[in-house]
Amino acid sequence: MERSKGLVTIPTDLDVVQETMELIKKWGADAIRDCDGTDFPDELKGIQAEIYSTYYTTRKDNAWAQANPDEIQQMYLMTPFYTAESDILEIRIMKGLYPDMLTPNIRDDIKRWWEVIDRTTGESVPADQWEYNEAQQRVTITTVPFHEYTVSFLAYIMWDPVHMYNAVTNSWEGVEHQITFDVRQPKTHEYTLKRLKTFIEEHPYVNVLRFTTFFHQFTLIFDELAREKYVDWYGYSASVSPYILEQFEKEVGYKFRAEYIIDQGYYNNQYRIPSKEYKDFQAFQRQEVAKIVKEMVDITHEYGKKTMMFLGDHWIGTEPFMEEFKTLGLDAVVGSVGNGSTLRLISDIEGVKYTEGRLLPYFFPDVFCEGGDPVKEAKYNWVTARRAILRKPIDRIGYGGYLKLALKFPEFIEYVGQVCDEFRTLYENVKGTTPYCAKKVAVLNCWGKMRAWGCHMVHHALYQKQNYSYAGIIESLSGAPFDVSFISFQDILDEPSILDHIDVLINVGDADTAHTGGEWWANPRIIEAVRRFVYNGGGIIGVGEPSGHQYQGHFFQLAQVFGVEEERGFTLGYDKYNWEEHRHFILEDTDTVDFGEGKKNIYALEGATVLVQREKEVQMAVNEFGRGRSVYISGLPYSFENSRILYRCILWSCHSEKELNKWFSTNYNVDVHAYPKNNKYCVVNNTDKLQRTVIYRGDGSSFDIEMEPNGIVWYAIEE
Amino acid sequence: MERSKGLVTIPTDLDVVQETMELIKKWGADAIRDCDGTDFPDELKGIQAEIYSTYYTTRKDNAWAQANPDEIQQMYLMTPFYTAESDILEIRIMKGLYPDMLTPNIRDDIKRWWEVIDRTTGESVPADQWEYNEAQQRVTITTVPFHEYTVSFLAYIMWDPVHMYNAVTNSWEGVEHQITFDVRQPKTHEYTLKRLKTFIEEHPYVNVLRFTTFFHQFTLIFDELAREKYVDWYGYSASVSPYILEQFEKEVGYKFRAEYIIDQGYYNNQYRIPSKEYKDFQAFQRQEVAKIVKEMVDITHEYGKKTMMFLGDHWIGTEPFMEEFKTLGLDAVVGSVGNGSTLRLISDIEGVKYTEGRLLPYFFPDVFCEGGDPVKEAKYNWVTARRAILRKPIDRIGYGGYLKLALKFPEFIEYVGQVCDEFRTLYENVKGTTPYCAKKVAVLNCWGKMRAWGCHMVHHALYQKQNYSYAGIIESLSGAPFDVSFISFQDILDEPSILDHIDVLINVGDADTAHTGGEWWANPRIIEAVRRFVYNGGGIIGVGEPSGHQYQGHFFQLAQVFGVEEERGFTLGYDKYNWEEHRHFILEDTDTVDFGEGKKNIYALEGATVLVQREKEVQMAVNEFGRGRSVYISGLPYSFENSRILYRCILWSCHSEKELNKWFSTNYNVDVHAYPKNNKYCVVNNTDKLQRTVIYRGDGSSFDIEMEPNGIVWYAIEE
Repeated sequence: MERSKGLVTIPTDLDVVQETMELIKKWGADAIRDCDGTDFPDELKGIQAEIYSTYYTTRKDNAWAQANPDEIQQMYLMTPFYTAESDILEIRIMKGLYPDMLTPNIRDDIKRWWEVIDRTTGESVPADQWEYNEAQQRVTITTVPFHEYTVSFLAYIMWDPVHMYNAVTNSWEGVEHQITFDVRQPKTHEYTLKRLKTFIEEHPYVNVLRFTTFFHQFTLIFDELAREKYVDWYGYSASVSPYILEQFEKEVGYKFRAEYIIDQGYYNNQYRIPSKEYKDFQAFQRQEVAKIVKEMVDITHEYGKKTMMFLGDHWIGTEPFMEEFKTLGLDAVVGSVGNGSTLRLISDIEGVKYTEGRLLPYFFPDVFCEGGDPVKEAKYNWVTARRAILRKPIDRIGYGGYLKLALKFPEFIEYVGQVCDEFRTLYENVKGTTPYCAKKVAVLNCWGKMRAWGCHMVHHALYQKQNYSYAGIIESLSGAPFDVSFISFQDILDEPSILDHIDVLINVGDADTAHTGGEWWANPRIIEAVRRFVYNGGGIIGVGEPSGHQYQGHFFQLAQVFGVEEERGFTLGYDKYNWEEHRHFILEDTDTVDFGEGKKNIYALEGATVLVQREKEVQMAVNEFGRGRSVYISGLPYSFENSRILYRCILWSCHSEKELNKWFSTNYNVDVHAYPKNNKYCVVNNTDKLQRTVIYRGDGSSFDIEMEPNGIVWYAIEE
Repeated sequence: MERSKGLVTIPTDLDVVQETMELIKKWGADAIRDCDGTDFPDELKGIQAEIYSTYYTTRKDNAWAQANPDEIQQMYLMTPFYTAESDILEIRIMKGLYPDMLTPNIRDDIKRWWEVIDRTTGESVPADQWEYNEAQQRVTITTVPFHEYTVSFLAYIMWDPVHMYNAVTNSWEGVEHQITFDVRQPKTHEYTLKRLKTFIEEHPYVNVLRFTTFFHQFTLIFDELAREKYVDWYGYSASVSPYILEQFEKEVGYKFRAEYIIDQGYYNNQYRIPSKEYKDFQAFQRQEVAKIVKEMVDITHEYGKKTMMFLGDHWIGTEPFMEEFKTLGLDAVVGSVGNGSTLRLISDIEGVKYTEGRLLPYFFPDVFCEGGDPVKEAKYNWVTARRAILRKPIDRIGYGGYLKLALKFPEFIEYVGQVCDEFRTLYENVKGTTPYCAKKVAVLNCWGKMRAWGCHMVHHALYQKQNYSYAGIIESLSGAPFDVSFISFQDILDEPSILDHIDVLINVGDADTAHTGGEWWANPRIIEAVRRFVYNGGGIIGVGEPSGHQYQGHFFQLAQVFGVEEERGFTLGYDKYNWEEHRHFILEDTDTVDFGEGKKNIYALEGATVLVQREKEVQMAVNEFGRGRSVYISGLPYSFENSRILYRCILWSCHSEKELNKWFSTNYNVDVHAYPKNNKYCVVNNTDKLQRTVIYRGDGSSFDIEMEPNGIVWYAIEE
């Protein structure tokens, strides 16, 4: 069979010129790229393919950085907590940090920008009660005995964290540490625009500038042993400098405090209910980042080149789901695809001409080594991403890393060729249409669309024991036939009618986190709106500790809606009689539910219907509230079976059980996606095993089918 | 062997006169008693034994109650939460309550004493915005749509809850419901003193008035099906009336609100961090209850009779561990012994001449029935209580219920005879001495001595899934060779030097409960004192979520002391490398620790020593802080093995590992207790199996021994 062509990007390097040419044919690639640590071979410059060049806006120019040390990027850091044993305490501020990566900023007024906090009282220590010794990198504080103290300080980023990560992971020897400079500051800003022009002029063979990325790195810190110490893919701690913060103060009209970024050492990670100041700061960053990105995009366009942004590394402040992003004028976004959720982080972006997903595995020696199984990883990655691509496709796929490593695995080369073909067929069938959506579902949390698909992520798609039971909901949704939106509590305040357009609300996560909302539930306008929504017939699904916040006699503020509560000791005196399990529509395809970490101490209120309890701890229950219905689940890690459970929960909660057999596979390992606009539908086997199932079409008619492992079959919709 | 005599009380009834006489001999009993639902036989009135008569201060006189309906006892109740669906809401206040037990009090001004609360805002609904319809027992409220409302109301207790419980448990047919009258109110107060005199005069054969009890029943409510609905053995909700509350207002100088008692429906149960108003109310009740108890005691004494208080039923306000109790002049306290903790609830009481423990099983048909095994229950109860008796003996033991039932089980009669002998020997050897105490241990919570031994109890010794892992600590301590005190956070504020006299502090329970302290940990004076204590060499043991309260960058406020923290989502970005388990002195007698419910999401900080982690959740860790040591345990249900673990924790935490082999059994199923003052020590086998062990004496010398099941052996201490 002749292979199709296009929509695929591959990496290259000086040592694989011939192999690159061959792979272009084999995979039908139409774009080639360099990577961090690779160079683009001269021999390929005239090739019949688009040529991407990574462009490092903030690094790979140590000469500039060293000549302008005042404009090196900075980040806020907090020391660990130290207990004062007497009325004086010394804190070595760099303890626990990789020394080569960071240098405390004493160029700016440390009494203005640093902050010493008495964590026992929560108060700032007055500036005259602490001193910094530069030589020893110690802060000496006048203290109250047995109070705890922390120092918040600014440090220059003397080694770009991603460059350091790449160097450590690949055991690069003797590489010069790339320093990151701050494009937001005046000299570097001016220089950057010139540097960009020079780069374009010196690389005439390049068609697409792949910005990696713009100005601010997500938070990534290493310890003395060069191990990762802290990571937040959404963190803004490394997007600061006195220059920026003074502008921020002017914009918002109040004085900046280091604590707005430090946040008790939690650095405003996405589990934290965002403070007003942090939201102000993010908004300011979006606005300012957008201005300079636009300048760079315009310059690139003037040269007739395309602009592509890598969604990762220095992406902070671009916020692709926020309004400012559409003003950037970018041609494309490319991002790493770890699973369905991360796929939709890319494919749901609006305001660009195309999106590209960099599939895994990355061609690094951690996988492409003796004993590694890159085919297995590639299959898992592709099948996981495909679910989401079928809901909202990316426009291209690609790979990154050292091609030389991949070439040693011919089965991998063969398998990716199949993936490329399958993607092109899929894209042809799906592009430009809206797939059939059974229901409109909204995930309600403190972040709304800004963290669409990324809520519950810490470091991109990386597993966390404490969040997989919640992230599973988002992952299930990424490939499910629903119109999914992400709304915030503020959205409800701003526009209460937002709920009128939703069939089912989902609130998922632990109590008192941004994911469930915490104190927002003590806001009468929020709880009125949500109760009204359900009472009038809406569906609501709560996972974990939905609406969890101790207030006025409830821990679950929606206890009466969900029909469940959490025993925190305060209601032990109440006898609990509702433990009997009931059969239910929701569990008709399931024997034993995997609730992941589940939740302890949940009990059902009178009148609620318990579906699953284990050792007198309710894991799943349904309830009716007015004309509406609720489902409580203690946790739901991603699996094909659990995706089916969530599907049924959604249908049941909005009284749509009868719509089950519509574009539906009775075997939950197989999905059906329909594209009525272009009269196509497909059946996909998500497993690497043969599957038999009954497929229901949109009109309720059905047929039996046996599906090849990982197979996808396309059909025309007959009128 | 001739049996010893004395120190034992048995029940009697009209139908077991001859058998009572025989049992007096068989068990060596020297006191006989009646019970609720029994009568004292004439034939026994001249017997050579003390005769106890239960005296029901607040019931068994319906004529009086019916003639004085305004002085029937009352309780505060809160309805469930109801959501307003429009601008009007009707609430049937008696829904969910057993109708015969309670009658809403509309005699007093309901607008003053009842309270309708908008639980969405937390505000009281103004009195002109709600009305009560007496015929329908409905409150109609002008509402904000989709807010939740509750009604707090006063109701007369038309059937004494314990009488009802006894009637339901024993299937009593056709009994008149005993109404409880309020001895605190003026007419009943006056009548009560006369009634008491009359009773004494009419029962000249009685030696001891066994008051059951004084004035206020602990909170006990039944639902429509006569099932227990709510119980709090420490609850004060049924100790209220407008008469009392008006006095309270005068005493404290501020206006009373129903919410002070209702407490969002949590009724100030002991898990709640007590409010100022509730503490004021308890103090007022103690003071006023004491006054009238004293009057009744004096009258009884004038007649030459002894006074005994039953620690249960209407015991609220007597608070045996508080100062007022010593002023009552009572001769004795008797209480039900469910385990070691409840034993010490009795035996640790000061200010009475003697204490008596009513052992289990109670002679009720739930145990003394076909298929019942009262011997097993008696053995378990005795061996469990014996540990505590050996630390702090009660002065007498006894049994209650229907003797007729017990007589059908001759093995039970035989076994109890052995128990009586064993108790008398034990009492002879132990009484009047202070046993050897290895260390001074203090349990720190919000209640301190007021809930000594009873902290973590909901309904006396009843199991709760949510508390057995914590109550196990108290149960272990009840029979362990330590000088145990219970201190409150307020005690530390009042007298910081209180910690100077303690070797080891224990903080045990869930976060944000009264047991661990919640917001008290944000009080600098508290945390300074505790950190200073440990820093200077003190030991600290935290169980569950010790010092748990989200504040200033910690969930565990003593995170740096314990070396552990709880992952609540906010620190997911921090890499956690400290998971390796270490061997340790604490676990040298243990293979696999039973942590009970344990805790999820605990991780160790750098420098702490992990002893046990399961699936990357730390269950046990130790740490050093200054010169002090800490132990973290996720939970420790009561068992012989876990008692040994706690013993080792205490020794290790105060640097006393070398003192291990002192009055010590290498087999943790066997205990050693020493009484240096009278040169005795004993070895006890707590199991019903033969045990071999090595016993270490106080001087470090040792010997092997094989112990009979449940056996106790007494030795002289040789100089």
